[in-house]
Amino acid sequence: MTDLSPILEQADKNLTASLERLFELVRIPSISTDPAYKAECRKAGEWLVAELNGLGFTASLRDTPGHPMVVAHHEAGRPDAPHVLFYGHYDVQPVDPIELWENDPFDPKVKDIGNGRKVLTGRGTSDDKGQLMTFVEACRAYKEVAGSLPVRITILFEGEEESGSPSLKPFLEANADELKAEFALVCDTSMWDTQTPAIAATLRGLVGEEITVFAADRDLHSGLFGGAAANPIHILTTALAGLRDETGRVTLPGFYDGVEETPENIKASWETLGRDAKTFLGEVGLSEPSGEKGRSVLELTWARPTCEVNGIWGGYTGEGFKTVIAAQASAKVSFRLVGEQDPDKIRESFRAYIRSKIPSDCRVEFQEHGASPAIQLSYDSPVLTKAKAALSDEWPKPAVVVGMGGSIPIVGDFQTYLGMDSLLVGYGLIDDRIHSPNEKYDLNSFHKGIRSWIRILAAL
Amino acid sequence: MTDLSPILEQADKNLTASLERLFELVRIPSISTDPAYKAECRKAGEWLVAELNGLGFTASLRDTPGHPMVVAHHEAGRPDAPHVLFYGHYDVQPVDPIELWENDPFDPKVKDIGNGRKVLTGRGTSDDKGQLMTFVEACRAYKEVAGSLPVRITILFEGEEESGSPSLKPFLEANADELKAEFALVCDTSMWDTQTPAIAATLRGLVGEEITVFAADRDLHSGLFGGAAANPIHILTTALAGLRDETGRVTLPGFYDGVEETPENIKASWETLGRDAKTFLGEVGLSEPSGEKGRSVLELTWARPTCEVNGIWGGYTGEGFKTVIAAQASAKVSFRLVGEQDPDKIRESFRAYIRSKIPSDCRVEFQEHGASPAIQLSYDSPVLTKAKAALSDEWPKPAVVVGMGGSIPIVGDFQTYLGMDSLLVGYGLIDDRIHSPNEKYDLNSFHKGIRSWIRILAAL
Repeated sequence: MTDLSPILEQADKNLTASLERLFELVRIPSISTDPAYKAECRKAGEWLVAELNGLGFTASLRDTPGHPMVVAHHEAGRPDAPHVLFYGHYDVQPVDPIELWENDPFDPKVKDIGNGRKVLTGRGTSDDKGQLMTFVEACRAYKEVAGSLPVRITILFEGEEESGSPSLKPFLEANADELKAEFALVCDTSMWDTQTPAIAATLRGLVGEEITVFAADRDLHSGLFGGAAANPIHILTTALAGLRDETGRVTLPGFYDGVEETPENIKASWETLGRDAKTFLGEVGLSEPSGEKGRSVLELTWARPTCEVNGIWGGYTGEGFKTVIAAQASAKVSFRLVGEQDPDKIRESFRAYIRSKIPSDCRVEFQEHGASPAIQLSYDSPVLTKAKAALSDEWPKPAVVVGMGGSIPIVGDFQTYLGMDSLLVGYGLIDDRIHSPNEKYDLNSFHKGIRSWIRILAAL
Repeated sequence: MTDLSPILEQADKNLTASLERLFELVRIPSISTDPAYKAECRKAGEWLVAELNGLGFTASLRDTPGHPMVVAHHEAGRPDAPHVLFYGHYDVQPVDPIELWENDPFDPKVKDIGNGRKVLTGRGTSDDKGQLMTFVEACRAYKEVAGSLPVRITILFEGEEESGSPSLKPFLEANADELKAEFALVCDTSMWDTQTPAIAATLRGLVGEEITVFAADRDLHSGLFGGAAANPIHILTTALAGLRDETGRVTLPGFYDGVEETPENIKASWETLGRDAKTFLGEVGLSEPSGEKGRSVLELTWARPTCEVNGIWGGYTGEGFKTVIAAQASAKVSFRLVGEQDPDKIRESFRAYIRSKIPSDCRVEFQEHGASPAIQLSYDSPVLTKAKAALSDEWPKPAVVVGMGGSIPIVGDFQTYLGMDSLLVGYGLIDDRIHSPNEKYDLNSFHKGIRSWIRILAAL
């Protein structure tokens, strides 16, 4: 194997400039769920195209019905080298509640948080701009020192990951020949802890639904109509409350079809990781696992399905009080899926259940917000084994193979449309507050993340 | 009795000018619940003081810790005439959702709605600016023709009725000698229908509560934490759903203490009014009574207590989807009370119930939004009998004595602090959309309302 020291040293030397490039990207508020930021999403894509072209990739922006894709290609130094597809996303989550941010989410800073730890503040520093830039900067260092790349690389950056990736499947289908590689590298996951890199082998799927219950044709005065007129907030809260029983199980018929119990040996390996309710929930001010009774927090978040209400609104929500019976009430509901759970069947079961709770003189409307099945990757493929060794060389502790609670639908889409598996490596940390105010990325995640990719690219 | 014809004719002649005065008052956006409109509330009070002084009253604005009171006095033409206190409120409800208004809520218009019916559009045209101005304009016509008033009148207009009247009780207590009369006239209620005036003899009380459930110390990613971390929306919706059982009864311990069944003869008189679920609910696009099973809509809205969620909010409520587990969730909840139900005990019972539903690692905060017991007035006092006859002279059909679903806490306060009963006469209609977008007041309500007060004042 090549001596990697000069390349790793080059990455070290580049760090200040690498950071400045990441910050340029973070300063673009590419919030994909909010149409007001459409132009900013495009700008982030254009910025990436320019960067990649500057690095010697052949990069272009590809229009979709939604936000554009960034696609880039680079040949390997050796003709027999493998071909990999690297995936990341340049879009970010909304920033509300904005008043809880300590720093402007789109004016990133390096902040010393004590104990020798420095972090990069801002929306997207971790999810996923910081993560994808580790790969871009790894390619830069490699080329600057070796003059070439050790593998053939295709890059795909999308701009709709945070809004359910509506354009992704058609794009993969239409461009399968161009995008297909031997396997994919996906950088949108976390480390086990600050010392221990992780490779994710299972990912929960997701079904997103929005429901609106309609009752009277106008808001009503609760004095005049209260007691006689249907209140859509009652209908909605009662229906939502009935989704779980007292043991925390989801009550929808057929919900657990395709959910397997986790093998004992896997559960045993998770036990050794030392993450329990106290440490995991304690970090966010909680202490009691809230889901299915009698299961560990790792099982609950990696291997069990959930039903969560992500948002609810209806009636008067301003200052003071208004004795109103609302005309409508809404909620956003999501299900995390595991094993072989079928997203479409769960959506159907949910809708049938909700409809059964709507009085005959009221009605309900549903809006779909994405669906993806869960993913289970092999625990012992050659690619995973090589990456595990490369990561273990870079970090203080050896890499671990873990489950992931979140959905990365792209992994399923790569299987379906391009016939390839993915290797999930990322350098986020559990306290990165992704999707929340005060998102950050450790400087160490960024720096050693770049170095990790150099090692992985060489190992492949 | 005096021949009232010239006075009634004067009211007819004044109508255009009377309307213009009402519109001046409606144009002042005196929303009492929203601190942003504090100056506008004061302006509405000042406008009324000027009007009343112009009419020969001795009127002044009285400061309170909240919005100011308007107090005015006028002697009767005869020294042996009774002394009455007239009550109304110059504050109005918020206007959201503003996009549902067909006309600017603070730019009132006369609008022809067909079938010979004209209405006055705008927030407060009915509740309560239009109503209180019927009395002011009746006094004007009386004075212009008779040169004096037939009874001694004290006027009290408050500016906090829509926000729970926090300053009212202390004000009544501090100014009891000045305000006490033989009885009160309260103009904040509705007609039975466009042909039939009504006098209200029962009013439901109200307890208002706002609750906020707190879980994690920040918003969480539902992928990372879902299934393990407490979701405050689940806790809130489950607690709220448990407030009513399947028969529509409220489940709080002790809730029905002090609730008497309505006497059969009263229920029988209500049966003759011809308002059933179909006509009452049909008007707002509904058909099924939603409260306690097996009771008529009149019983449900006049004689039974309720629990209503008036607003709920938590998590992500914007466009698209955000897979967040919120840090907190809130609801505004109100109870309508009847008979001898004790507002304080019901608040305590509600809070104890909610607390029992909060997991040990979460917490709840309560905010009080007013409390008033229900009112039951005499069905056969001399004042009521005289007013009933006077109203029956003015309108096509005789006046009826009814119950009211809404709370008018002032009636209880007048009993408690000034030791006097109230006569509840108003000219609103059920389709006035008070508290909702597109509030209106029938031109007929305004015009014949003025004439009705002239007749009532003479009869007293």
